[in-house]
Amino acid sequence: MSATGEAIRAVVLLSGGLDSATVLALARGEGRLCHCLCFDYGQRHRHELQAARRVAAAQGVEAPVEMPLNLRVFGGSALTDDIEVPRAGESEGIPVTYVPARNLVFLSLAAALAEVVDAAEIWIGVNAIDYSGYPDCRPAFIEAFERAANLATRAGVCGRPVRVRAPLIALSKAEIIRRGAALGVDYALTHSCYDPDERGRACGRCDSCVLRRRGFAEAGVPDPTVYAP
Amino acid sequence: MSATGEAIRAVVLLSGGLDSATVLALARGEGRLCHCLCFDYGQRHRHELQAARRVAAAQGVEAPVEMPLNLRVFGGSALTDDIEVPRAGESEGIPVTYVPARNLVFLSLAAALAEVVDAAEIWIGVNAIDYSGYPDCRPAFIEAFERAANLATRAGVCGRPVRVRAPLIALSKAEIIRRGAALGVDYALTHSCYDPDERGRACGRCDSCVLRRRGFAEAGVPDPTVYAP
Repeated sequence: MSATGEAIRAVVLLSGGLDSATVLALARGEGRLCHCLCFDYGQRHRHELQAARRVAAAQGVEAPVEMPLNLRVFGGSALTDDIEVPRAGESEGIPVTYVPARNLVFLSLAAALAEVVDAAEIWIGVNAIDYSGYPDCRPAFIEAFERAANLATRAGVCGRPVRVRAPLIALSKAEIIRRGAALGVDYALTHSCYDPDERGRACGRCDSCVLRRRGFAEAGVPDPTVYAP
Repeated sequence: MSATGEAIRAVVLLSGGLDSATVLALARGEGRLCHCLCFDYGQRHRHELQAARRVAAAQGVEAPVEMPLNLRVFGGSALTDDIEVPRAGESEGIPVTYVPARNLVFLSLAAALAEVVDAAEIWIGVNAIDYSGYPDCRPAFIEAFERAANLATRAGVCGRPVRVRAPLIALSKAEIIRRGAALGVDYALTHSCYDPDERGRACGRCDSCVLRRRGFAEAGVPDPTVYAP
């Protein structure tokens, strides 16, 4: 609650994946009035958007704002180009599935929406443990972004800075799953696979599937994911 | 030129307006290999995009990358909503034509493109003098953004940081026009008006037209703008 007794508004970046579904539950658990924001950024896995709608509905928040964002005009990533998604362990360093400056772009658009809906917080499911190859998942980036955003917006200039909340940043996948399960997140509704089949079933073999599977196993929580045969 | 003798690549944010046309000429004047980036961000003045294409062609650079960016899904500004554009002097403080976090969003997408095309610089025509009401036109924001971007991108992490160049930031409109005219910029191709008629002719009365008109007068450069009768 804010000083005036109203719920604090928050923009939640929702991808339809396991992490952002957990973030939404954490934000709601702190009493935030959540405005979810999804991107249709030209990725091949449109199943993510459908998952995001299911997750928002299941958690009782308004339908996400869906922002078309055609990063294909830039190229440069396995998630937006037609190059093959690598199997787990095939790549070293920064993964080829890295989308250029993705979290910078996503957070910037979240800051724009936050200003419009008068939100005091932006929640994002970045994680510096499992995705250590992505530079834009590190705490130093989140802090630098927050500073830049508060110099860019009317709210920031007028003494109502926006805060970026990244509650998963230091958690393992198993810890994320345990926290979400405790809050009643239905992970059957979420989608993580980089390379699903035409029915949206997870491949079970890409980096994202392997991390997710291992996370459920380590958390001791049954994995509700439907994998392609 | 870079250390290897190749031209330094630059992403230039091109709006079709007077300022960004000048920025492109300045970048070319420093020998940059320019990749122009335009946004179709749901604004009512599609004439800007046409102007951007004309400006790029006239300066002999490749056609701009045109990125659809539908900020209408957020609302919140006279440039993207259907509220009336104010005449000059009608508003105080931050103008109602302010687009939430616009330069933050534009620069973030420019950083993504810069990473894809391996550009070492992003050039932007922000100006802290005439547009002092816009928080995201100030040097402090530009510096904070540059820092955040270099923590977000593969290039930044790998020791090839991107630099944000804002050569107009401390210039008056008259100084901008004088520099551009000296570089041969054809301002007849540019478009500044917030409220053009259906043939694209400038209204001559909005904030942007008034600043532009006064700039030409103060610069002692003939104003080639075609105003609606």
